Amino acid sequence: MKIKVLTIAEDILGANEEKARRNQERLDKHAVLAVNVMSSPGAGKTSLILQTINGLKQKARIGVVEGDVASTLDASKVQAQGAPVIQINIPGGCHLDANMMEKALNNLPLGEIDLLLIENVGNLICPAEFALGEHKRVMLLSLPEGDDKPYKYPLMFAEADAVLINKIDLLPYLGFNIPAFNRAAVGLNPRAKIFQVSCKTGEGLEDWFSWLLAEIGEMKRAGKSHI
Amino acid sequence: MKIKVLTIAEDILGANEEKARRNQERLDKHAVLAVNVMSSPGAGKTSLILQTINGLKQKARIGVVEGDVASTLDASKVQAQGAPVIQINIPGGCHLDANMMEKALNNLPLGEIDLLLIENVGNLICPAEFALGEHKRVMLLSLPEGDDKPYKYPLMFAEADAVLINKIDLLPYLGFNIPAFNRAAVGLNPRAKIFQVSCKTGEGLEDWFSWLLAEIGEMKRAGKSHI
Repeated sequence: MKIKVLTIAEDILGANEEKARRNQERLDKHAVLAVNVMSSPGAGKTSLILQTINGLKQKARIGVVEGDVASTLDASKVQAQGAPVIQINIPGGCHLDANMMEKALNNLPLGEIDLLLIENVGNLICPAEFALGEHKRVMLLSLPEGDDKPYKYPLMFAEADAVLINKIDLLPYLGFNIPAFNRAAVGLNPRAKIFQVSCKTGEGLEDWFSWLLAEIGEMKRAGKSHI
Repeated sequence: MKIKVLTIAEDILGANEEKARRNQERLDKHAVLAVNVMSSPGAGKTSLILQTINGLKQKARIGVVEGDVASTLDASKVQAQGAPVIQINIPGGCHLDANMMEKALNNLPLGEIDLLLIENVGNLICPAEFALGEHKRVMLLSLPEGDDKPYKYPLMFAEADAVLINKIDLLPYLGFNIPAFNRAAVGLNPRAKIFQVSCKTGEGLEDWFSWLLAEIGEMKRAGKSHI
């Protein structure tokens, strides 16, 4: 029997882009680099953000937006690290959008930060479809999710500026084929930078920090040329 | 600084319930038990379905609906096991709904199956909000996702008839607190049955098979009393 494939299109697009553009202009004015961090639930977004605050504390002032369906668990962890944080709760929602982002920007001290890390809702689909005004999109995939994910969630990979393979410390226990994953990810998006990291052991995070610092530097130079 | 929490409501509800009810009547007529399997990407839904087809092949005739954003990877694996399968692809979508389910039912040999396993799109949020006409909802959480997930995705846990903790073979390598998880899950949903399984090693699957067979038996008895 041939497999029957039913393809169903949905209208998801809204008037989100214009608001996202205005959010970005506002961030640009303050030379704040905004990074939208997306992944499945439990892939390690919060751990990455905590490690980044800690790793860059002498080098960059970091603010955080936490998007969740429910709870302030993640925001509390970030606040304990001393970073300004806004929690956005979206009951029944599955992604942040530019309206929510605008509300978050209204509540953040933009003049006092260099880098805004946005933890999107844990979801490999919807967040990729809604621009927030971010400058960079980062996709986190954890090793236990499997190396076939680029084929199953192509938009998320196609839109990412950086892909972090997290929980690399579990490699000995899992059948994750890194070269196959890299081929699939690069096939969807040749410009994405791929990092192998463990937010638990700290392995590989220095390269990620260097990438962020370079992007913050770019932002500051661009900002200066505006003034 | 107190954490600021912005709560944003979204209108997600549609006219899905009525169609779901009709789907269920149709399944009831054929005494087919329909089970909606939901989880994050990579938690092991396809592996669970493959193990279940194999484990119950002498005891129940199984059909499968595969929901994915893209690809027929999972449907091909199911078809290789000899089960009738319908792939539903939803570009840009993040969950199955009752309309899609109706289309799948139109294409399945309902008179020839006892159990319909529905693999929803990998997503811990949206699938819980859309009834398909299923009789039971099963939530799969894999150990690497972390034991805090009931607090962050409460609806999914509150709606599940059974919760399977998968990848239990990774327990020695991860800091997953099973009693804490069980307390949180039972707090949201005291009636949910919790199973600890490994779809890789087969550990714990017999209990899951027994649960399914008991539910299929219930269905058949209810079906007979209708005739």
